[in-house]
Amino acid sequence: MLYPGALKKLVEVLCRFPGIGPKTAQRLAFFLLGQSREEVVAIARAMVEAKDRLSFCKDCGSLAETDQCAYCNDYQRDRSLLCIVQEPRDVLVLEQTGRYRGLYHVLHGALSPLDGIGPEELKLDQLVERIKKLGVQEVIIATNPNVEGDATAGYLARLFSPLSIRVTRIAFGLPVGGDIEYADELTLSRALDGRREM
Amino acid sequence: MLYPGALKKLVEVLCRFPGIGPKTAQRLAFFLLGQSREEVVAIARAMVEAKDRLSFCKDCGSLAETDQCAYCNDYQRDRSLLCIVQEPRDVLVLEQTGRYRGLYHVLHGALSPLDGIGPEELKLDQLVERIKKLGVQEVIIATNPNVEGDATAGYLARLFSPLSIRVTRIAFGLPVGGDIEYADELTLSRALDGRREM
Repeated sequence: MLYPGALKKLVEVLCRFPGIGPKTAQRLAFFLLGQSREEVVAIARAMVEAKDRLSFCKDCGSLAETDQCAYCNDYQRDRSLLCIVQEPRDVLVLEQTGRYRGLYHVLHGALSPLDGIGPEELKLDQLVERIKKLGVQEVIIATNPNVEGDATAGYLARLFSPLSIRVTRIAFGLPVGGDIEYADELTLSRALDGRREM
Repeated sequence: MLYPGALKKLVEVLCRFPGIGPKTAQRLAFFLLGQSREEVVAIARAMVEAKDRLSFCKDCGSLAETDQCAYCNDYQRDRSLLCIVQEPRDVLVLEQTGRYRGLYHVLHGALSPLDGIGPEELKLDQLVERIKKLGVQEVIIATNPNVEGDATAGYLARLFSPLSIRVTRIAFGLPVGGDIEYADELTLSRALDGRREM
């Protein structure tokens, strides 16, 4: 027997999750088998229910319980400000700061020619249309500080230059509570570049 | 909105998995939301099906598709040999070696007084009964090489001493392909203790 069919299948589907390899999947599978049937059904149901109840906003691409998300639907928010992020979860993190009151735009990825992700895949034409339609005055680019995120930010800045709007990117530097001694050189050089008058 | 109810619930259930914290759970949740409904249903179904089809053997506690596992049911296997492991997945790993042809006994844990796991929780009385009933001649203890596993092995050895059977524990030493230079002191001292004539 070695691997019964149902276990093999379970390990296989768990391996599809990002960051979960065969060893971790096997561990998770055995955890599930050790739970009560009700518990396993509750987990399975929560997955399908979340999928059924949640989708992505047709305008900005962030998480939504209806066609349009709560941000796009909130006319108290500043429609002249648009923050561009890579993933829907980035919106939640930015909202947790409580400092941003504009709208969002989720790219659902970053430019990555090697993975075949270009401007069409990120629907950048629609993004430009949306900026024009909303009458946005400042675009804040909040892509990740890594190769893909930097390349995407650079591409977007060039793409938006004919629109005569303000294009900014969130600051990079030392994390609050961080220690200069342990900062890597790249972060430290970005912190120096981004220095401000006191 | 910040965290819609269905997402909160999903992150919460994913957090129940061992080794998965809130950040990873959120990442997995967003991965699920990005999949098609069919894909999410397939994952959910694989979990419930595995739970429905698989259980633990009434005799040895390892994974089984019926009341009794394929090992206990296989009369070609050597019934005078019993290998004791902590978890059902350990049985799969040992089977993959292809070197063991005896029976198994899964403790479903290790002695850990701080977590309230004592001899009763591991049903050690039933284990002793099983050893007597099978007429086992050698017990191979394959608990993990850590504090709980060592304590459990020591306890079992004392428990079995009145039975006048051979009690062994699997060897500890350098992993094959390992490098003495990078071995930790504990492993190296166990490797020295376990040295054999060439």
